Amino acid sequence: MCIRIGIMGYGNLGRGVELAVKNAPDMELVAVFTRRDPAALKINTENVPVVSAAAAAEWKDKIDVMILCGGSATDLPVQTPQFAKDFNVIDSFDTHANLPAHFTNTDAAAKSGNKVAIISVGWDPGLFSLARAYGNAVLPNGQDYTFWGKGVSQGHSDAIRRVKGVKNAKQYTVPVEAALESIRNGETPALTTREKHTRVCYVVPEAGADLAQIEHDIKTMPNYFSDYDTTVHFITEEELLRDHSGMAHGGFVLRSGVTSEGTKHIIEYSLKLDSNPEFTTSVLVAYARAAYRLYNEKNYGAKTVLDVPPAYLLNKTAEELRASLV
Amino acid sequence: MCIRIGIMGYGNLGRGVELAVKNAPDMELVAVFTRRDPAALKINTENVPVVSAAAAAEWKDKIDVMILCGGSATDLPVQTPQFAKDFNVIDSFDTHANLPAHFTNTDAAAKSGNKVAIISVGWDPGLFSLARAYGNAVLPNGQDYTFWGKGVSQGHSDAIRRVKGVKNAKQYTVPVEAALESIRNGETPALTTREKHTRVCYVVPEAGADLAQIEHDIKTMPNYFSDYDTTVHFITEEELLRDHSGMAHGGFVLRSGVTSEGTKHIIEYSLKLDSNPEFTTSVLVAYARAAYRLYNEKNYGAKTVLDVPPAYLLNKTAEELRASLV
Repeated sequence: MCIRIGIMGYGNLGRGVELAVKNAPDMELVAVFTRRDPAALKINTENVPVVSAAAAAEWKDKIDVMILCGGSATDLPVQTPQFAKDFNVIDSFDTHANLPAHFTNTDAAAKSGNKVAIISVGWDPGLFSLARAYGNAVLPNGQDYTFWGKGVSQGHSDAIRRVKGVKNAKQYTVPVEAALESIRNGETPALTTREKHTRVCYVVPEAGADLAQIEHDIKTMPNYFSDYDTTVHFITEEELLRDHSGMAHGGFVLRSGVTSEGTKHIIEYSLKLDSNPEFTTSVLVAYARAAYRLYNEKNYGAKTVLDVPPAYLLNKTAEELRASLV
Repeated sequence: MCIRIGIMGYGNLGRGVELAVKNAPDMELVAVFTRRDPAALKINTENVPVVSAAAAAEWKDKIDVMILCGGSATDLPVQTPQFAKDFNVIDSFDTHANLPAHFTNTDAAAKSGNKVAIISVGWDPGLFSLARAYGNAVLPNGQDYTFWGKGVSQGHSDAIRRVKGVKNAKQYTVPVEAALESIRNGETPALTTREKHTRVCYVVPEAGADLAQIEHDIKTMPNYFSDYDTTVHFITEEELLRDHSGMAHGGFVLRSGVTSEGTKHIIEYSLKLDSNPEFTTSVLVAYARAAYRLYNEKNYGAKTVLDVPPAYLLNKTAEELRASLV
């Protein structure tokens, strides 16, 4: 019995899901949906149709789980509730502040169609949410720390590209090693934004641009850079493409807590990823398996990773899991 | 509404549960059960009765979850199925090879009494099982590594104490840092037993004992030491008590996997614990909360940590969790 998977959107995430489904013996890719012209889209899998997103509803009985690969800013707030009426869906919605509203909208849609929607799947939110939840559960008297990087922040790179005189740019978020070490040593520092991450920018200027002005405009940009120690490097377009096209990322979640006077415990969860999209979509695909199982149990509605038993993510029986992983 | 907790057995684990329940605003310690003379046992909580283990069944309607604090060798294989008929129970059964049988026995008992039994809770098995399961789920094409320590192994310390001429001893299991570093660097070494852990022994000899013979007997002991690089230090009883009475422990679970040719990802989960029993029991108490919830859902039978949604471990509503931890 194979879980029939659909992919909605064929960017970095869509291609990552395609790859992860290929590596899942219990899954089969049924169709890729796109808002572009389907005829113009060439995908990496043979004999799988590319279909217009507008025709998705016609596929509702042919797909067990639709994995939504759009962005959190404008795609998912619309798409997830829309498709959750007809499909079990997985999304990677990552705008923390809007999560409650997104959950409510999706929950109503999924319940109206007797479907399951697992939202905010990936590594943060996602695996990092799990690390925070387990950490808080076992060390209620403690402190959470989340660090991101080293990796490219798309939002910050975009912000730099909007600066006058900038042709192209990549921005790396880098955790401050001294802060990590302090927590690992059992200290529980109250860290400012500046003390947790630094920002390193690689900027391709337009010909004749005022470099000092660009650097000033970046470093003083509110929210994005003014609260951080920021370094700006000017490079050529060739150097940017050659040295900064990678999609590596990662991060750390630490929980530092005490159980009695002076008795400290530190839990650390960390990721070192060569490809942010390939890893993120590996998580999406594991949760697609869980969504299918929840659906078969008629456990309808919206869920987050915190609602899903870990065993549901694996293509193994409970007996196999107990024998091999417990 | 308070979850009424019973503690079965009052050693290091029992005292740890007592402490953790004190820190849980949604729980209340109702009674401590002992196989010793209840009148002779003084516990750390005022106004909580100490009761003979033989009389436990009389408390079946007064306790929501009984936390079993006995040992895996002889206590739990008997106690867990026995008490799972009358109580929701949590145990820390850690003999991996006997887990399937223990699960089967406990499952039958719990189902016969319409109760929930969560077995093999703690950090390994327990949190480390979760780390292995999530790691396998998101990186199906990869390799698992589990390291323990630095910390005292009770079983190995006991084994040394049985050597002729040894008065007392403590044995530390120490992970090999070079092996950890190699995995963190993306290598996937096939590690022998010797390459993963070293064993460091602190031995108090009897007066006039043959130290060279003791050292030889330890280092050549099959299963326990012969496959490891073992160091033996002879010290006095005073030094042993002063320097080696701590209960610190910890360890590492790594999952190293690839998603496409040459694209590597490393997940690392680690614990650094000042007190092995206090941390272990913090996990037990979090799962007691989950057991109570599963019981209220009539989801009876034996479970492991892999069967429990993470949200069930926390004293927070789903809305609070989504707003704060996802």
